[in-house]
Amino acid sequence: MTEFYNGNKTFINVIPKSHNPKANEVKIKVHYCGICGTDFHIAKGELDNRIGSFPQAIGHEASGIIEECGENVTGYKPGDRVIVRPLSYCGECPECKSGNENVCRNVKYLGIEKEGAFQPYWNVEANIIHKVPDVLSLKEAALVEPLAVCCHAIKRSEIKKTQSVVVIGGGPIGFMTALVLKSKGVDVSVSEINTERSKNCINAGICTLNPTSDDIEKYICDKTGGHGADVVFEASGSQGALDIAPDLICPNGKLITIATYGKPMNVDIRKFHYKQISIVTTRAYQKDDFEEAISLLENKILDANLLISKIMPLNELTKALELGADKTDIVKILIDCREETAI
Amino acid sequence: MTEFYNGNKTFINVIPKSHNPKANEVKIKVHYCGICGTDFHIAKGELDNRIGSFPQAIGHEASGIIEECGENVTGYKPGDRVIVRPLSYCGECPECKSGNENVCRNVKYLGIEKEGAFQPYWNVEANIIHKVPDVLSLKEAALVEPLAVCCHAIKRSEIKKTQSVVVIGGGPIGFMTALVLKSKGVDVSVSEINTERSKNCINAGICTLNPTSDDIEKYICDKTGGHGADVVFEASGSQGALDIAPDLICPNGKLITIATYGKPMNVDIRKFHYKQISIVTTRAYQKDDFEEAISLLENKILDANLLISKIMPLNELTKALELGADKTDIVKILIDCREETAI
Repeated sequence: MTEFYNGNKTFINVIPKSHNPKANEVKIKVHYCGICGTDFHIAKGELDNRIGSFPQAIGHEASGIIEECGENVTGYKPGDRVIVRPLSYCGECPECKSGNENVCRNVKYLGIEKEGAFQPYWNVEANIIHKVPDVLSLKEAALVEPLAVCCHAIKRSEIKKTQSVVVIGGGPIGFMTALVLKSKGVDVSVSEINTERSKNCINAGICTLNPTSDDIEKYICDKTGGHGADVVFEASGSQGALDIAPDLICPNGKLITIATYGKPMNVDIRKFHYKQISIVTTRAYQKDDFEEAISLLENKILDANLLISKIMPLNELTKALELGADKTDIVKILIDCREETAI
Repeated sequence: MTEFYNGNKTFINVIPKSHNPKANEVKIKVHYCGICGTDFHIAKGELDNRIGSFPQAIGHEASGIIEECGENVTGYKPGDRVIVRPLSYCGECPECKSGNENVCRNVKYLGIEKEGAFQPYWNVEANIIHKVPDVLSLKEAALVEPLAVCCHAIKRSEIKKTQSVVVIGGGPIGFMTALVLKSKGVDVSVSEINTERSKNCINAGICTLNPTSDDIEKYICDKTGGHGADVVFEASGSQGALDIAPDLICPNGKLITIATYGKPMNVDIRKFHYKQISIVTTRAYQKDDFEEAISLLENKILDANLLISKIMPLNELTKALELGADKTDIVKILIDCREETAI
């Protein structure tokens, strides 16, 4: 089953008919595509207003091999191992011209506003693909996209090595954000409710607290000599995290939001005002964030095995979306989209 | 009447007994003290949790003349015309040491957490007074404090001359923020509901819209060639302003909050996320903001007559607090605190 009833309409995940790549496009034989938190929101029907068309394939954390190049494509050839930076942007607006294609005026996110990667073959513009370095497997390469989200958020935080950080949420994004910060020498702690996700962080040598049993505010206060966290990264997508964040952050500090929110999330601006805390939102990534993510994986700052909980075939996508939505012991599920396994 | 029933307790504004200045203090004969939006919140009983003691004098936008210097006070003498930067800070915490005394760990705001200026004589630490330049009257000098709030917010906005700004709220803070931005060559528009306040802005040559009759989003969009405002300053203290702000701001833009909020104010973080808009909160001012405000007034960027709607004697403080709370045609009320006028 690759069709999924999202609570509103049956549209996830319909596989379109495979076709030849148009000019400037490549046709990719998709190997792996991770399930993102956004996909769970889509599965719940929370992002129907953003879905480009019904029915449509979703999925945007893909790695694969070029099957065919369309006209005018240079620098790539069939057989190249690639990943996709899943943004369709206009290249003409002020944001695109200043390298901020993630907030392009006409942006469409592949797998949300446009056709995504949960299918055996995926045609995309050649200007959004990146080659996979030889040392990386295609499984590892499927982690580049979420890792680039973390790199972008960290770049926007302007964090300094001497500062203290709390990451709220130890799911894939929170976990990888903490790992990247740790690799940069930053003092980082993670707050995570789920025991299995906590174990992951602890196994990677990251100090991890459980907000239901630990007094995180006191812990951070003690750890920083009364200073508080310079920066909090909010990667849980929960209202509770937004509520507690200003209590953890020092005066003049920053809250960086990385999570995608499936419903309105309220921040009481007064709490931030008193400590003059800034809220820096972050969306997706820019090209250089993608390049940094590739380089970080190449340098093995991340053990993919810690992150990938399960690999399931494309015809079990529905099951995978149900399984991950429970947030039990699952960190990241990869979907194997190769036809031969998708029986 | 200088006592005021704030809905909870009778405490505003009790005049303490005049006493000699302690070491490092000066005794100021208060001439003028403006009524701030915060004072209206206090008068409504919305900030009781912050009031230092009951009963207590409030008021924090004061100018006056030094009556007497306590021991160890250097650089000042009786007869000096001064204004007060009404922050009591510890000087020891990391924030104070980095010049951020506005968010000192132990800060007390004079007129809120500590005794304020609605009294004939006010004793304050000498390290928070500034001399009034000869070219400024003490009436004009009473505007330095709110003007410093604007300077601080503008500094934190990191605005560039080529950028477009909308200021929401044309009260004293919004109006002065717009004037300072205009003096810096920034393209600024004000959104204000109240007709009298609008007139003020218009008289000062500032493009001013009424959100109840004008389509501000369309106006800003058209004016900026589809770009949107680079920065919105929120100086109205209203929920509606926080709701509309992300629609006015361009991708990667900023919302700067300057208003003091008397009750919880919710921001739906999702709206900001999609356009990757940052929310920069601002609180009070630093020493250099106060100095800039003095310099701006010295250079006559602001006609005090446009701002000061009324001057009322200290014994009419209750009436003044009631009058201004209606927000009819009042912009700024100064209280004349000299005993001889406070019959």
